Amino acid sequence: MPRSRARAPPKTTDEDEPRVRADALQPTLALAEAIYDQLDAGEIPRMRLPLRTKQNLSFQARDGVWKLGRQLGTRSARKLDGALMLLRTFYLVDFINEMARDKKTSTLRELYYISEAWEEAKFHSEDESNLLIEDLEVLCTRLREDFRLHPEENGASVIGDLTIRERNRKGIVKTINCRDDVGDGGYSLPFNVEKEKIEFVSTKAKFVIAIECGGMVDRLAENGFDEEHEAILLHLKGQPARSTRRFLRRVTEELKLPVVVFTDGDPWSFRIYASVAYGAIKTAHLSSYLATPSAEFLGVTASDIENYNLPSDHLSEQDIRALQAELTDPRFGTPDWRAEIELMLKNGKKAEQQSLAKYGLNYVTEHYLPEKLTEMGIL
Amino acid sequence: MPRSRARAPPKTTDEDEPRVRADALQPTLALAEAIYDQLDAGEIPRMRLPLRTKQNLSFQARDGVWKLGRQLGTRSARKLDGALMLLRTFYLVDFINEMARDKKTSTLRELYYISEAWEEAKFHSEDESNLLIEDLEVLCTRLREDFRLHPEENGASVIGDLTIRERNRKGIVKTINCRDDVGDGGYSLPFNVEKEKIEFVSTKAKFVIAIECGGMVDRLAENGFDEEHEAILLHLKGQPARSTRRFLRRVTEELKLPVVVFTDGDPWSFRIYASVAYGAIKTAHLSSYLATPSAEFLGVTASDIENYNLPSDHLSEQDIRALQAELTDPRFGTPDWRAEIELMLKNGKKAEQQSLAKYGLNYVTEHYLPEKLTEMGIL
Repeated sequence: MPRSRARAPPKTTDEDEPRVRADALQPTLALAEAIYDQLDAGEIPRMRLPLRTKQNLSFQARDGVWKLGRQLGTRSARKLDGALMLLRTFYLVDFINEMARDKKTSTLRELYYISEAWEEAKFHSEDESNLLIEDLEVLCTRLREDFRLHPEENGASVIGDLTIRERNRKGIVKTINCRDDVGDGGYSLPFNVEKEKIEFVSTKAKFVIAIECGGMVDRLAENGFDEEHEAILLHLKGQPARSTRRFLRRVTEELKLPVVVFTDGDPWSFRIYASVAYGAIKTAHLSSYLATPSAEFLGVTASDIENYNLPSDHLSEQDIRALQAELTDPRFGTPDWRAEIELMLKNGKKAEQQSLAKYGLNYVTEHYLPEKLTEMGIL
Repeated sequence: MPRSRARAPPKTTDEDEPRVRADALQPTLALAEAIYDQLDAGEIPRMRLPLRTKQNLSFQARDGVWKLGRQLGTRSARKLDGALMLLRTFYLVDFINEMARDKKTSTLRELYYISEAWEEAKFHSEDESNLLIEDLEVLCTRLREDFRLHPEENGASVIGDLTIRERNRKGIVKTINCRDDVGDGGYSLPFNVEKEKIEFVSTKAKFVIAIECGGMVDRLAENGFDEEHEAILLHLKGQPARSTRRFLRRVTEELKLPVVVFTDGDPWSFRIYASVAYGAIKTAHLSSYLATPSAEFLGVTASDIENYNLPSDHLSEQDIRALQAELTDPRFGTPDWRAEIELMLKNGKKAEQQSLAKYGLNYVTEHYLPEKLTEMGIL
């Protein structure tokens, strides 16, 4: 990390502070230092940062993640827009460091309103503030959670034999087993799932099944699937939050557990899988943190709809367009995915995961999942 | 309860069974008995049930709840539609009793798919199955949770000094304090919050604050508001699930704690309040179970937007139409509500609860809430 030249940076750690990465905010101060030096030298301040346009993104099929290219853009105070942007950036850096000193965090939405006090530099929309935060993530190679900023999204729930230690917002550490110490609702992931917040202690599980619908999670839990097959159930809650994706990444890396994804059978649910496995363009700069390329899609596939004769609905116009877009989406570039998407387009059908109830409440846990998991080499 | 005349009903309780209401399913069997008797006597089977149309509903301003009137409709096997409806009803009764024997539950969606096996009697849409379940609730004066049926909805999260005992899906009882025994995500309400499932043990709290946005719940928790003011924080998660509404009702009735509702300031959020306090037309037949008429609306009010000079947005066409509809909605029939709705229409503005961050992250807990709660006589 570049060392501050003019003066010692304010401390961001002390005895009571959660064990955050000691250098979490250092890059923000280095940014400020750089601008200060430019002003001191009588130069018009400017910042260079990687462009996050489609042209500057590539999907690395081998690693299965997005990568930013080398194209840079410049933000300069030469024009009013650029000057306001720079001003805004450093109000934000100031706010972030102030939160760290006060041991606070903030939602993205609160930040948008906090900027009311920045007068001409205030944000005009939450999109604007979100974009700036992403810029800062790229510039400082940090996660917004390092900046103590988080969205409203609900993180996943987890049910199963996994013991974790969570350092709560008051700094108290609690040991929680996600089966024995929680109610039927399971353990709710907090918005920050980094190591200073959540430590994995132990698990007897053999794999993680990440599930789209709450009703299906309840079904597996009620049928004792997690116990019988030594699985951890994770409720994705639709398009997964970043905390959910980060959690799955950590589970794979640190606990070496395979992850399978079980969703409805339609193009939007396929994107849920892609989000878990490969990330999204929006967080392309964080793929190595948030993506779990080894995660496998279990179902519901177009083949399943045929083979299991599942109750289905017709594809809508939007569904068809989404599937066609997926045929050119590099995340679905494997032969298996192309075959499935083409089959779905050909049959014109989509189906929900809960449609397996056609064969009774136990069919999914007694037949469908064991068959699919055995095929996949998990069981 | 009417006693079965022909033969003893199957037992729905035994030593291992959760302490469900012993007579939970008795009315469904009585229904079946009645139809059997009609057939036995050579009559065309028929059922009479209260109509759930707008004309047969009235809002009892004194109790603050909806009540069903005396109008009845008849479902008769004289016509094919009626016959299929009756057949469907008893397939459903059979499925419910089978679940009770097998100690299972089912989501509304699974039920819809289960009906695939009922051939001509199968449901054509989930709306159809939901309506039939509501009919059964009215006919049997039971909750669908008694029938072991539940929706997908996420129940609320609860943070604060409240100790409960939850009997989990395996029948094991756990004591959980919603501050000391849970992570930052709080305690997640299960879908059934009846006494056989959740028992209130103790609390030191003085009131409950039911909050619309997760970010605001996090703000209050992070600022220690629950500890400082002896409050229980409840995250409504938008339009509250039935389990959330039932929970608030029980908290008021059994723990005698006042409930205040804190949402964004716009007509849709006003309806969130109304749903908690008075119920909705859809569940009019269950108002006395699900409504908490003593719950008070704290804000954000139209007056607050003015008095606190909050960052606001313009009302959209839909917002204006919603507010005008609320002027004739009996749930907003008090002088205070009329004044507030008319003020909002006059000013043309709506605001989010997190907009209080304009004055800094601590403003809501150090100024806004204490001021409002003191005005309301809670603090």
